[in-house]
Amino acid sequence: MTSEFDLIRDYFSRTTRHTDLAGGDDAALIRPTEGHQLVIAADMLVEGRHFVADADPQSIGWKSLAVNVSDIAAMGATPRWALLSLALPEIDPHWLREFAHGFYECADAYGVDLVGGDTTRGPRNLSVTICGEVPAGAAVRRDGARVGDALWVSGQPGRAALALWHLRDALPLDTGHRENCLLALHRPQARAALGMRLRGLASAMLDVSDGLLGDLGHILDASRVGAALFAEALPLRALIDACGDVAQAQRACLSGGDDYELLFSAPPERCDAVRALGDSLGLPLHRIGVIVPPGDGLTLRDDVGTAHPLARDGFDHFAAER
Amino acid sequence: MTSEFDLIRDYFSRTTRHTDLAGGDDAALIRPTEGHQLVIAADMLVEGRHFVADADPQSIGWKSLAVNVSDIAAMGATPRWALLSLALPEIDPHWLREFAHGFYECADAYGVDLVGGDTTRGPRNLSVTICGEVPAGAAVRRDGARVGDALWVSGQPGRAALALWHLRDALPLDTGHRENCLLALHRPQARAALGMRLRGLASAMLDVSDGLLGDLGHILDASRVGAALFAEALPLRALIDACGDVAQAQRACLSGGDDYELLFSAPPERCDAVRALGDSLGLPLHRIGVIVPPGDGLTLRDDVGTAHPLARDGFDHFAAER
Repeated sequence: MTSEFDLIRDYFSRTTRHTDLAGGDDAALIRPTEGHQLVIAADMLVEGRHFVADADPQSIGWKSLAVNVSDIAAMGATPRWALLSLALPEIDPHWLREFAHGFYECADAYGVDLVGGDTTRGPRNLSVTICGEVPAGAAVRRDGARVGDALWVSGQPGRAALALWHLRDALPLDTGHRENCLLALHRPQARAALGMRLRGLASAMLDVSDGLLGDLGHILDASRVGAALFAEALPLRALIDACGDVAQAQRACLSGGDDYELLFSAPPERCDAVRALGDSLGLPLHRIGVIVPPGDGLTLRDDVGTAHPLARDGFDHFAAER
Repeated sequence: MTSEFDLIRDYFSRTTRHTDLAGGDDAALIRPTEGHQLVIAADMLVEGRHFVADADPQSIGWKSLAVNVSDIAAMGATPRWALLSLALPEIDPHWLREFAHGFYECADAYGVDLVGGDTTRGPRNLSVTICGEVPAGAAVRRDGARVGDALWVSGQPGRAALALWHLRDALPLDTGHRENCLLALHRPQARAALGMRLRGLASAMLDVSDGLLGDLGHILDASRVGAALFAEALPLRALIDACGDVAQAQRACLSGGDDYELLFSAPPERCDAVRALGDSLGLPLHRIGVIVPPGDGLTLRDDVGTAHPLARDGFDHFAAER
């Protein structure tokens, strides 16, 4: 008779690297670095909502941790420890092996120790908690954007949305771009190196999980400011190449979730430093707008400088299905 | 349209007491006490397995946190911070209000700040992560039991099992005891004060969540020792009074889970100190056995000193239903 303890031992018992005690006791013991704050977040992935029943378990394993690493990156912190609570309808050794493989691939990529968690029988649900650390007082929060700050986004937001629409609504994608879009959806890269290097440089930051405009709204609310986006600066080129449709590309870039790029503000005099950082990481950083007074709201400035009001349109798990 | 963000704000946004930043950002910021280790654990409660669909939401709220606090107590640590990830089939304001009420009741009882988490639509699932702290090196683990140590259990293990059998299998319970048994099942007390005070006194410890014998087995395995239980020392009296059946009482005490009492070993010369601690807390502590060499296995000694082998019989979430 397979027990839950065998299950844990078999699939999730790799050696840890920076943990005093992991697994096999009531709780794990970790030793935060002196003078640091602990940064802690949780994300829950549910079958049928965040992934389909027959989704590749290796990708689910990767993604369940990567979206959590991204939350730590978005604070400018170093990811360190994770806990994984799993509800599973049955013990499927193939699924578990592949899931664990993907999870540990991500853990290795970002230097994270899996230190604990729980397993139980139930509708498939993956609940991950992540802990990171940051020098005390140095975390990059959402409430630090100031009028005049430049607004930046990393990489290529919008690819995951194109992939989702491709899979769900049969949106045609160019064969040369399809794979990259699917990778963005199934194997998102948490921008951990970028997040840490932005400490002391970014004034506000978050990761784009629910759509660029919706998440930008959180920065604007927390910082009590507005923002103007520059239409010509949005990274649309690759999206247009992928789907052949400017409107879809713009919608994917501005409202598509699940890319986990970092969206941040930085003082205008630090623009060269931000550019140099992007170059050193080999990661494109796009200056897509500017922080404005709160009364100016959220607008899109076209190439002749006219400002068009923008609705916030992030993805919401309890909103009506689209 | 109610959004998940409104949901969080409405029900789970009380002021925290010892947290630098909670909610409203990508992650929470907490500041561990210098010279301490962080103690971290997670427990997942699934509808249909850990509670029935129409269970009192206030009790579910209490229990979802209490079982986690118990894990911290079982390490001899101080509970401090929690994260709550909720999957819910729909937004039911009554259910959420009651659940939050029970959760915060427990948080207040044990001095825990709710600092973050996640919400999503899905089959009802409550995933809680708890963080505590302990002076570095002082955690009470499972692997410290030594031959000759006395074996202790707190309070009254077995009541939750009687309540479960009462509800599920119509086991008759004496009216004078029924309420206490139901409270033990629905509103378990985490032995947090006891756990902290046992630092430096207990040699090994855990909380009894899956049944006394099954959980004792974890101490024996981790410490590479055996144990002899004293039949006449088992706290059966109240259980027999409740159900009127010696065999059921013994089964509830030894194999029933979900009471969250602390099971611990302590050197024999510290017995008076353990008794004094129980007295000062107003909590009965029962000296139920002794740690023996591993070759002696796990036995029950009757009142003439004869040793009967005992099978480990804890509850296992992936084992066949009983």
